[in-house]
Amino acid sequence: MKIGIVGATGYGGSDLLRLLHQHPKVSDITLYSSSQEGVHIHESYPHLTNIYEQVLQPIDIDKISQQVETVFLATPPGVSAEITEPLANKGLKVIDLSGDLRITDRGVYQNWYKRKAANQSIIDEAVYGLSEWNREKIAKASIIANPGCYPTATLLALAPLVKKRLIDLDTVIIDAKSGTSGAGRSPSEMTHYSEMNENFKAYQINQHKHTPEIEQELRQWDDDLPYVTFQPHLVPMVRGIMTTIYAKAKETMTEEFLRNLYKDTYANDHFVRLRPNGMYPSTKEVFGSNYCDIGITIDERTQRITIVSVIDNVVKGASGQAIQNLNIMNGWSEQEGLAFTPVYP
Amino acid sequence: MKIGIVGATGYGGSDLLRLLHQHPKVSDITLYSSSQEGVHIHESYPHLTNIYEQVLQPIDIDKISQQVETVFLATPPGVSAEITEPLANKGLKVIDLSGDLRITDRGVYQNWYKRKAANQSIIDEAVYGLSEWNREKIAKASIIANPGCYPTATLLALAPLVKKRLIDLDTVIIDAKSGTSGAGRSPSEMTHYSEMNENFKAYQINQHKHTPEIEQELRQWDDDLPYVTFQPHLVPMVRGIMTTIYAKAKETMTEEFLRNLYKDTYANDHFVRLRPNGMYPSTKEVFGSNYCDIGITIDERTQRITIVSVIDNVVKGASGQAIQNLNIMNGWSEQEGLAFTPVYP
Amino acid sequence: MKIGIVGATGYGGSDLLRLLHQHPKVSDITLYSSSQEGVHIHESYPHLTNIYEQVLQPIDIDKISQQVETVFLATPPGVSAEITEPLANKGLKVIDLSGDLRITDRGVYQNWYKRKAANQSIIDEAVYGLSEWNREKIAKASIIANPGCYPTATLLALAPLVKKRLIDLDTVIIDAKSGTSGAGRSPSEMTHYSEMNENFKAYQINQHKHTPEIEQELRQWDDDLPYVTFQPHLVPMVRGIMTTIYAKAKETMTEEFLRNLYKDTYANDHFVRLRPNGMYPSTKEVFGSNYCDIGITIDERTQRITIVSVIDNVVKGASGQAIQNLNIMNGWSEQEGLAFTPVYP
Amino acid sequence: MKIGIVGATGYGGSDLLRLLHQHPKVSDITLYSSSQEGVHIHESYPHLTNIYEQVLQPIDIDKISQQVETVFLATPPGVSAEITEPLANKGLKVIDLSGDLRITDRGVYQNWYKRKAANQSIIDEAVYGLSEWNREKIAKASIIANPGCYPTATLLALAPLVKKRLIDLDTVIIDAKSGTSGAGRSPSEMTHYSEMNENFKAYQINQHKHTPEIEQELRQWDDDLPYVTFQPHLVPMVRGIMTTIYAKAKETMTEEFLRNLYKDTYANDHFVRLRPNGMYPSTKEVFGSNYCDIGITIDERTQRITIVSVIDNVVKGASGQAIQNLNIMNGWSEQEGLAFTPVYP
Repeated sequence: MKIGIVGATGYGGSDLLRLLHQHPKVSDITLYSSSQEGVHIHESYPHLTNIYEQVLQPIDIDKISQQVETVFLATPPGVSAEITEPLANKGLKVIDLSGDLRITDRGVYQNWYKRKAANQSIIDEAVYGLSEWNREKIAKASIIANPGCYPTATLLALAPLVKKRLIDLDTVIIDAKSGTSGAGRSPSEMTHYSEMNENFKAYQINQHKHTPEIEQELRQWDDDLPYVTFQPHLVPMVRGIMTTIYAKAKETMTEEFLRNLYKDTYANDHFVRLRPNGMYPSTKEVFGSNYCDIGITIDERTQRITIVSVIDNVVKGASGQAIQNLNIMNGWSEQEGLAFTPVYP
Repeated sequence: MKIGIVGATGYGGSDLLRLLHQHPKVSDITLYSSSQEGVHIHESYPHLTNIYEQVLQPIDIDKISQQVETVFLATPPGVSAEITEPLANKGLKVIDLSGDLRITDRGVYQNWYKRKAANQSIIDEAVYGLSEWNREKIAKASIIANPGCYPTATLLALAPLVKKRLIDLDTVIIDAKSGTSGAGRSPSEMTHYSEMNENFKAYQINQHKHTPEIEQELRQWDDDLPYVTFQPHLVPMVRGIMTTIYAKAKETMTEEFLRNLYKDTYANDHFVRLRPNGMYPSTKEVFGSNYCDIGITIDERTQRITIVSVIDNVVKGASGQAIQNLNIMNGWSEQEGLAFTPVYP
Repeated sequence: MKIGIVGATGYGGSDLLRLLHQHPKVSDITLYSSSQEGVHIHESYPHLTNIYEQVLQPIDIDKISQQVETVFLATPPGVSAEITEPLANKGLKVIDLSGDLRITDRGVYQNWYKRKAANQSIIDEAVYGLSEWNREKIAKASIIANPGCYPTATLLALAPLVKKRLIDLDTVIIDAKSGTSGAGRSPSEMTHYSEMNENFKAYQINQHKHTPEIEQELRQWDDDLPYVTFQPHLVPMVRGIMTTIYAKAKETMTEEFLRNLYKDTYANDHFVRLRPNGMYPSTKEVFGSNYCDIGITIDERTQRITIVSVIDNVVKGASGQAIQNLNIMNGWSEQEGLAFTPVYP
Repeated sequence: MKIGIVGATGYGGSDLLRLLHQHPKVSDITLYSSSQEGVHIHESYPHLTNIYEQVLQPIDIDKISQQVETVFLATPPGVSAEITEPLANKGLKVIDLSGDLRITDRGVYQNWYKRKAANQSIIDEAVYGLSEWNREKIAKASIIANPGCYPTATLLALAPLVKKRLIDLDTVIIDAKSGTSGAGRSPSEMTHYSEMNENFKAYQINQHKHTPEIEQELRQWDDDLPYVTFQPHLVPMVRGIMTTIYAKAKETMTEEFLRNLYKDTYANDHFVRLRPNGMYPSTKEVFGSNYCDIGITIDERTQRITIVSVIDNVVKGASGQAIQNLNIMNGWSEQEGLAFTPVYP
């Protein structure tokens, strides 16, 4: 299959290159970039020397549609809102890694993103690509709104409880911690090494754009949901997200019940791994891979459930899930191109 | 004043040395260690070369009582429970940095610490050394149970709200993140560099010993408290704790009200610093210092309050607060020996 | 092919598992460990959950010889010296990642390693597995002494100059910097997170065991070599080695001559990548991969050549080169199982 | 004394604030900044909240000369070249932390700095502020060219050998490693957290501006010096420089001779600390302090001397040495304001 990547010079784009390099069904990749047109990709990313020799092409809808069959958009906010429709009109399948097509209510998007939403028709056509939960729709979709990194870690952790309506949604607290790669490749004071190392930061308190995305999806599973409290933090590391999620059980439940619920729910999902009793995953245990690892317990004293989920934000939180969705769209094995172990240590 | 430090080779002990070096009222320091008796302190800590030349002395109650007037115990669990009483009987003032004297209910101590508690009489005599809130008792005390690192960051953050009974205590979630120095100087797999770097870990889920300490102190301020959910995590950095605390307000309140509450409460407390509206502290902003910095907000959507507090776990969470208490006990200025800025970046 | 790994719970062993998982010619892996016999590998390494379910077997020569055809020894010093011969006698091919079989002079080994050397016959049989330079011998070998991490980065960087006798060997300085994974998985004060983070250390000054290995191999290429100065340092990171090598050119040469020399030398070596003029590799650019990247220049003022080479110490410096050698021994493509990009960032 | 800091928002400036806060002879500090005029310093540096409340003033020579007696210039390249002379003409003492006044040969400056040099008269008036070696001149100076961070660590390490002409200068290799704070506070791709963490980089190969500074000062001690090879690297840490220096001894010498040479040379220099036989300093052992720690040995095999020196680049390499020079200029104790231990761990 011929693949295009628009926005190949960001971390999402370069990680797509890493994964597609090993994908047995993908032979031909063309790279597009508005900012670095004409540059060799290995000049921007020397780690790709002798592996990818392509020159970055300008973003020209006509040319893209002639050159590729499926296109990944790993672009800054606002770009997908503009180019998804023309690309789709040319018959291309589009997998969008940005947040532009995820929020179905354009007013909500505009409130949180502070920019104009995409057309309603294109938003309606896009399928939210949370692979483990939307397989059937993804299989038939031609446009995918690939989930955000925090929502992926959060929704996979909460789904079994929310779908069965076992927790009091008003009590849900999502305390999330991310490595710096989620902030992208553009230097800033916040992610300047001297400011970020030996430091731990909370940011965008009550204001992070992934909040409405989490709420929207949880409401599909349990429409009782009011609002969630979602709070991200920045960890002095590059890759990895942990969410620590707290929620009150509606009724008394045992640890064993809880564990079985998760075991059964994800029994057939290769990329979701449950830790045994008393064990919890740390972010390094999924580094570089498409896994989402989960640990869960209930405190007998407080009847409060604690869920710990970890992903590599660049992989399962972006490029890896995008390829998992590509696989589902094409009827290939979900593990195609993703069947490798995390890099540890 | 002649000072003794028992357990000088741990991080708490060596940081006491750093701070006492600048303390104008302290002239004479004797070091005691059971594990490294006879060793020069700079052999264990080369950064003290040419600054401290002392040889570590064995822990001999009689000798200690002849050599010093006040003794800091920076010892592993169980030691203070044994030696505080004989030291006190010799007329020494004792500032204990371990957890042995903090929990007033011996049964609770034994449940969480899995070891025999100190005698009730010595526990009763010890004053909990949360400097900003127990000044009067500390001033008269001869034994101080110096607070744990997590409880210090948590209690300073919650006190204004809990004392005024403004929050629903059942909703309190304390999500805490610490650097690795809190785990001490003994190597372990958990804090092995290759396992800890580029990693973020949750640990001791629902089992951390600081939980009953936090609950005990909060209950003194509001006896409605059932249990709190306190969850620590390990950050790939050395010094610093952040607590992100979530709680529901009992009644609607404005951001301004909240900010004024904190501003008024801590108006005369040099070491508690409040961030302005929309700003939150990060751990590096207190690195190496005795400050506790706090940011606070309320989410209009959820009426949930978020408090972010940061301390240097080794300083305000251990050695610095111990010296602040030494100052209070002796009627000296609280800033004596602690009047320096954080080290940034 | 049926593969065995002895010492599967160290970092070398677990990285072999990562690489063999993707190797198309390897179907069956058996794990052996003296320290963790009977344990599931994913209990020791949770990142392998659902990927490897094997139980660690005891090290029994008879059983190993019945179960596997080729065995990797990723064992502590001294083990290979004992078990290589019996394994070889059973007809197994052995790839030894330890230092036991690398030094051909037993006296030199005993001087530097402070332990008894292997039998001379087995040492003589072992081929030094620097893949790019010993292909022919490796292809015929049944025992491989897989090179050390520092020697690999050093020898690949120096070979083109030394083989052509273009530098004054008395002037060679090898200043090497390594991540902590090279020190293995056993916790120690040196690699304790609180001691190692925000720290940079020199260690084993003039005493590192890789010194005689470097000298031995360089002498094969130019027997004029007296001694080299090799100095390792520890960097607060996990994976990666950089060597910065300084040497005086015997005769005036241009940058262009130098670059062409390297380009020509490594023209057919996929895993050695040369940076263009004025560019130098950093360690992250080979993270997780089998590449050795090299930058080179000559200072017109001093006629001193500077070579910068980087590898991932766990891969090209251990497990990856071991698999490259496995490929050569079996006449497979050298890239088999190793054809993936570095993980960046 | 009334002090001014021009360029207070850089790391050098903010560290001056940290040190001056504890300086018993300094009562009054005025801050100047071209880029952040009108801003409160704690808005730029929240760690200074409640400690420094000053508003940054514009850089106006007349006003500065009315407000302060001594001024520190912690400014980007080119500024000091312009404002030192007018400030000096107003009778102010100037301590310049930039490189503008260090190179006495204007042609050399212009070659390496690629910008116009300061006037020769002002360069001639400036005294190179390597405190331990230029005390007499510094005491009488009214303009100080404060040494660069790399030159400080290098010159203190080499001085005893070079002054006694004990080494062959043609063999000197200075392999230097620095934390990122030396690159300043402006974000860049090189010091972007995601690019810099878990990474080790060589930079400015044969082109670093500190090269001619090192050569100039070494030549004052031994005019035989041709050129030195000085190569800097970037370490994933914030503060700290290590130089590993290699040199051939002219004649055979013992370890004991070498150690005594250094011990005697620095016997009266509080801030230079020599490690005992077989011990070498690591950067963390001087973190936050004005110490320069040195370890030294000679390899019997190669007769090559290895010197390891470490400093905190922001302190002894900038702000701390500047204050040490302020003390010398005023006849105060050199330790005034600097008498504190490193922060460890």
